[in-house]
Amino acid sequence: MPNLSPLVAGTWRLHEQGWSAAERLRWIERCTDLGVTSFDHADLYGGYTVEALFGEALALRPALRERLQLVSKCGIRLPGHARGAARIKHYDSSAAHIRASVEHSLRALRTDRLDLLLLHRPDPLLDAAEVADAVAALQREGKILAFGVSNFGPQAFELLDAATPLVTNQIELHPLRREPLHDGTLDALQRRGRRPMVWSPLAGGRLLAGDESPAAQRVRWVLGALGAQLGVAPATVAYAWLLRHPTHPRPVVGTMREAGLQQALAALSLRLDAEAWTEIWQAGAGQEVA
Amino acid sequence: MPNLSPLVAGTWRLHEQGWSAAERLRWIERCTDLGVTSFDHADLYGGYTVEALFGEALALRPALRERLQLVSKCGIRLPGHARGAARIKHYDSSAAHIRASVEHSLRALRTDRLDLLLLHRPDPLLDAAEVADAVAALQREGKILAFGVSNFGPQAFELLDAATPLVTNQIELHPLRREPLHDGTLDALQRRGRRPMVWSPLAGGRLLAGDESPAAQRVRWVLGALGAQLGVAPATVAYAWLLRHPTHPRPVVGTMREAGLQQALAALSLRLDAEAWTEIWQAGAGQEVA
Amino acid sequence: MPNLSPLVAGTWRLHEQGWSAAERLRWIERCTDLGVTSFDHADLYGGYTVEALFGEALALRPALRERLQLVSKCGIRLPGHARGAARIKHYDSSAAHIRASVEHSLRALRTDRLDLLLLHRPDPLLDAAEVADAVAALQREGKILAFGVSNFGPQAFELLDAATPLVTNQIELHPLRREPLHDGTLDALQRRGRRPMVWSPLAGGRLLAGDESPAAQRVRWVLGALGAQLGVAPATVAYAWLLRHPTHPRPVVGTMREAGLQQALAALSLRLDAEAWTEIWQAGAGQEVA
Repeated sequence: MPNLSPLVAGTWRLHEQGWSAAERLRWIERCTDLGVTSFDHADLYGGYTVEALFGEALALRPALRERLQLVSKCGIRLPGHARGAARIKHYDSSAAHIRASVEHSLRALRTDRLDLLLLHRPDPLLDAAEVADAVAALQREGKILAFGVSNFGPQAFELLDAATPLVTNQIELHPLRREPLHDGTLDALQRRGRRPMVWSPLAGGRLLAGDESPAAQRVRWVLGALGAQLGVAPATVAYAWLLRHPTHPRPVVGTMREAGLQQALAALSLRLDAEAWTEIWQAGAGQEVA
Repeated sequence: MPNLSPLVAGTWRLHEQGWSAAERLRWIERCTDLGVTSFDHADLYGGYTVEALFGEALALRPALRERLQLVSKCGIRLPGHARGAARIKHYDSSAAHIRASVEHSLRALRTDRLDLLLLHRPDPLLDAAEVADAVAALQREGKILAFGVSNFGPQAFELLDAATPLVTNQIELHPLRREPLHDGTLDALQRRGRRPMVWSPLAGGRLLAGDESPAAQRVRWVLGALGAQLGVAPATVAYAWLLRHPTHPRPVVGTMREAGLQQALAALSLRLDAEAWTEIWQAGAGQEVA
Repeated sequence: MPNLSPLVAGTWRLHEQGWSAAERLRWIERCTDLGVTSFDHADLYGGYTVEALFGEALALRPALRERLQLVSKCGIRLPGHARGAARIKHYDSSAAHIRASVEHSLRALRTDRLDLLLLHRPDPLLDAAEVADAVAALQREGKILAFGVSNFGPQAFELLDAATPLVTNQIELHPLRREPLHDGTLDALQRRGRRPMVWSPLAGGRLLAGDESPAAQRVRWVLGALGAQLGVAPATVAYAWLLRHPTHPRPVVGTMREAGLQQALAALSLRLDAEAWTEIWQAGAGQEVA
């Protein structure tokens, strides 16, 4: 595993901020100063624009690169964009796509290497040997330092991991999506000693506001009550819920606001006990444990 | 695997009998005389009272201990009891809980060792290395002789088994709950040569009476018809259905009545053929095999 | 793996043709001349009649046997037939049934060996060691050359493969049944380097006509549009969809018409791109990929 920071900054919404390159650089620097030195990209974020916005900012202070770990993804092709070149959204885990996407990412990010490349989705046409060869070639050339996957179930993980070691599986996990706790996804990672990354740790913000489903309301109430008791924000409790897992997940923090980042960072020194953790699980599930 | 008897006596309902210690001892002796020398406990049975009721009886004739195999479980904490010390029902597979629970079980059962300790449920926060260390220490001290799990799916079983050998998985299996036959749970046990234990072999009695769902009625009818044909009780056919599985399951017999125990024992010399077995499966499933 | 042809001729409907032995021989010869030299049987096809119909034809020209690969299956027993000898449909993976079924198949097919024997369904009472012993004995005697399974999920496959190597898993796969792409069945085969066989590649013809469900209509429309664009029949596109999978599946062609066989053969030189493949997947699923 590349030496990622315990929290990873998500760039998913970077293009929505309307920031100048200098403002983007300031955000990168602020994250870095706070110890969040790893940045999570994908080729297609922002309609294939985010990597270049990031790279443009990084070009204002190239020496910063050495302090950062850059993660990107490939394997999905979107219609309506030159880089996707697709009629319909589809997966592509061919060697040609992987190489082309990585080389495009390197140019856009204005760097010579990705610290970590992830295959974005489990392609049903995945040819494990072909992917392994593509990865090995990119690693020999120094273009990627490590390789992993995202959104893989345990069987697809085992298939590809047997062909090329997967350092992580970036999964969606939060109290409203608990499946990876129970379907073997996290069991398989723990057995192999791999640390997951977690996207959407706050369910895209729905844990805190905007989702008025009974489950979301219950989770929000419990996060608020535990936060009040522990003297922290509800979001901090939500991050602590993830960090409590024995696989030591690395959450990808999607907020661009410093206050949000600070709430995530506060979770690094908060260990929930099993009972508080279960209260949150139970609020999401709408039932007590069996 | 400790040398458990082919049938295991369940103690789940021991506290409901209103028996004196002498009566409880008589029940233990009767089971033992019939070859049912293994007793299945859990820390929390009877609201954390059953182990002590059993131990009190055993103290009337301590030499009996050498003829018995004592199984207990830990890993669930219930509210409303000093020993659970919980606000809500939750799982706890921490080393501290495992040790504390085992030591409490030994005192309550008035014995120096458990022949087998089971982790009661697959805790989503299970730290396999921590559990393995706790188990190893308890085994070194002679406090537990063997270790296994209960209610684990195949992936969680594989995770923990890689850290510490699991001698069994005690699962719920009967014609109204056939999932372990098809979801990989029993496949994983057979592949590793481990014998399951089976709780609720008569679906808590619903196979015989009280459940008027179409499935239960169908199963009851088939058990009755096969029993009439074979000259045994319907319950005997239900036990034989379990014993027919190639993993050689050990049913946990919940009845405290000797007649019920005898019906279970009769199944040990009854081998159903595949067709009779399938008639029962089909009655539970409400459809023929594919 | 025995050296099966890329397409396998299904014999499922041989008894429905009303053909003389000479006509059946002509069909076998025509398949063989077109490179379809493998024939897929099961003991119970045609109510246990198809193997004998095939064998009778083969007896007209015994030397043809050396050019053929004969596959058969056992493990299901059907009521209403002397060979099934059953009150209800049930599975039987006992050594006795396997041997009896193979020996019956050899007599009916008028051959001294099966190139490949498949266990037809995952019997919940499967005893892997017993099956492995039965298979080893039949292989020693030269009665079967290779062994595999049909309709097995990944856990049951792993169980039996650990006891005796399984050269294939013959599964149902088509755009209206995509589960094996996502439930680990094909992942497990790819990881072990085993080629699946595929039954019902056209969903029993429903891909082309007769099924007016929205999903079937969508699939039919896409197969037609892609076929028109590529200058091939819709059925050819459907076969190409299967052949595109990295496990190199061998479809079992059910049609007895030469035109249908030619449409299947045309797929061997047609490689769909990932996007066209996904259009078909999407038509079956009724949604785009995640």
